[in-house]
Amino acid sequence: MTIKDVAERSGVSVSTVSRVLNDHPDVSDAVRTRVLEAVRELHYVPNNSARDLVRPQSDAIGLVVRGVGNPFFSAVIRAVEEAVSRAGYTMVLHQINTEDNELLAAASLARAKKLRGLILLGGCFDYTPEQTAALDIPFVCCSFTNSFGSLKKTAYSSVSIDDEAEACRAVEMLIREGHRKIAVLLDSTCDHSISELRYRGYRRALERAGIPLDRSLVAESGDFDMAAAYKGTCRLLERTRDFTALFVISDSMAVAAMKALRDGGLRIPEDCSIIAIDGIDMSNYTVPTLTTLIQPQAAMGAEAVRILLDMVEDRAGNRHVRVDTTLRLGGSVRSLN
Amino acid sequence: MTIKDVAERSGVSVSTVSRVLNDHPDVSDAVRTRVLEAVRELHYVPNNSARDLVRPQSDAIGLVVRGVGNPFFSAVIRAVEEAVSRAGYTMVLHQINTEDNELLAAASLARAKKLRGLILLGGCFDYTPEQTAALDIPFVCCSFTNSFGSLKKTAYSSVSIDDEAEACRAVEMLIREGHRKIAVLLDSTCDHSISELRYRGYRRALERAGIPLDRSLVAESGDFDMAAAYKGTCRLLERTRDFTALFVISDSMAVAAMKALRDGGLRIPEDCSIIAIDGIDMSNYTVPTLTTLIQPQAAMGAEAVRILLDMVEDRAGNRHVRVDTTLRLGGSVRSLN
Repeated sequence: MTIKDVAERSGVSVSTVSRVLNDHPDVSDAVRTRVLEAVRELHYVPNNSARDLVRPQSDAIGLVVRGVGNPFFSAVIRAVEEAVSRAGYTMVLHQINTEDNELLAAASLARAKKLRGLILLGGCFDYTPEQTAALDIPFVCCSFTNSFGSLKKTAYSSVSIDDEAEACRAVEMLIREGHRKIAVLLDSTCDHSISELRYRGYRRALERAGIPLDRSLVAESGDFDMAAAYKGTCRLLERTRDFTALFVISDSMAVAAMKALRDGGLRIPEDCSIIAIDGIDMSNYTVPTLTTLIQPQAAMGAEAVRILLDMVEDRAGNRHVRVDTTLRLGGSVRSLN
Repeated sequence: MTIKDVAERSGVSVSTVSRVLNDHPDVSDAVRTRVLEAVRELHYVPNNSARDLVRPQSDAIGLVVRGVGNPFFSAVIRAVEEAVSRAGYTMVLHQINTEDNELLAAASLARAKKLRGLILLGGCFDYTPEQTAALDIPFVCCSFTNSFGSLKKTAYSSVSIDDEAEACRAVEMLIREGHRKIAVLLDSTCDHSISELRYRGYRRALERAGIPLDRSLVAESGDFDMAAAYKGTCRLLERTRDFTALFVISDSMAVAAMKALRDGGLRIPEDCSIIAIDGIDMSNYTVPTLTTLIQPQAAMGAEAVRILLDMVEDRAGNRHVRVDTTLRLGGSVRSLN
């Protein structure tokens, strides 16, 4: 399979195919679609041996994923791989545990695999310039940004939702439905991650509605995985059952929390409403369907690659992109009005 | 970070670290553990630039995953990546849809990325020697084997469960609990995949128990994804409700089927028992917990890499490994006895 076959199948010139594959802007959408369809049908993978003749550098783009087995990342990884391959690069995936340091891992990987650029998926939010100094390649934070650190905005790129605002929006939905005793399930209130940001959103929503913060309703699971979320919810139930709704910072944690609530004898949503953020496939199939704010996972992955390759190929400098969530109304929130 | 730092931290010589990283057998388990801990703590990634001096070939191992978003694959991908990295190779991940041809995709990837070896995760079962001829590198089928094709056993390697026997085991569990009207939810009865094999196991269990096959209880979803499984179960319920148990060929499909049963007004397990095969994380958190036969996902990924690197590095020829499942007793099966 060569670029000629793709050109023939899509009825355009070889140089047009090349422009599409390298994501040049001067191609019409119709032509782009036709070429990419042909690429897909023929299973064409750009040949980097030929490419290497004019560009002797490595073609490796690193993707360091922190938080193994987090189902939220699956669709993002898929989108990153697709965009990286389409542009003729090779994605080098490296997955680490949440307690590991993604900067150390990334710097080591960058050296060993001669990475041209790097995407961090699910990292910390408190980088300092000293910590990122070892990373001398462009990098994009995907699904988070440097909210707690001292990095200059010009030192990196990011694609993320506004975690605090979206969490506030979720909790305000509960308040609009008449809930005032609202518990929250999170990793930690002060972990410098999405957990802390979404906790701030929770507090902002309560404050706006004049509801005082009740610390006994704040359940810290100490981890993002489902087992921890299940246990965290059980501990909450042992402490108090005096709440009518639960905001959970992620869909996968919410699935586990729903199980814990049910095992504790509570019906959803009759005894306890629940709302989350993320929008993973699985939460479509909980009983009842989880009400959640969906992050555009595939679009975030594709955007991260676009930003990174613009930097790698010197087309543009760094940039920060905010994306919005979409509400999916399930059956897990009951109105008290 | 160099191999010297790892040697220092673990208190062994550089050559011992090298032997561990290259998976040589002449290292004690205690030393291996110590070295791997140091590798992990220091986030050491073997430096292939140095390695390339003595071995100028590519260090790329391909992983072609067919069935994007299948949560069963997550733990396998993670294990493959870990084992490939530890051995100093680079994993090149390529994900395709179930309707795509993994052999075309793999051959294209092998050429473009100069792969040394290949792991196929979730492919078809009916390869012919002509179809694999373009693949001139060693390859391992992970989680399936060439059950319907004409490949010689010596032409490839595999790691898989005995799909037919395990499906038979699952259905026999239902029969032992007194069920005789047992429906099955699968992709297709004749798709040359795990679906067809597990359907055979279903039929074998019925035959052994002297239960005649009732075609109206066979629900074909036409795809492995959750949306198709949900719709397939709804169509089954429209056709008949005259069954007390449902065998589903995969956990993720079972989660969707449980939702469809519940939406159809059936209680689990009071009105309908359910059992599956796979053992994904999420099925621990269904209500009730799904009873399932767990595949050793991480062990299968690690074994696939071991077999492949033995072939790539000329230590051993091809081989076929069968692994067993482990029963997880959830609350989704009711006894009628």
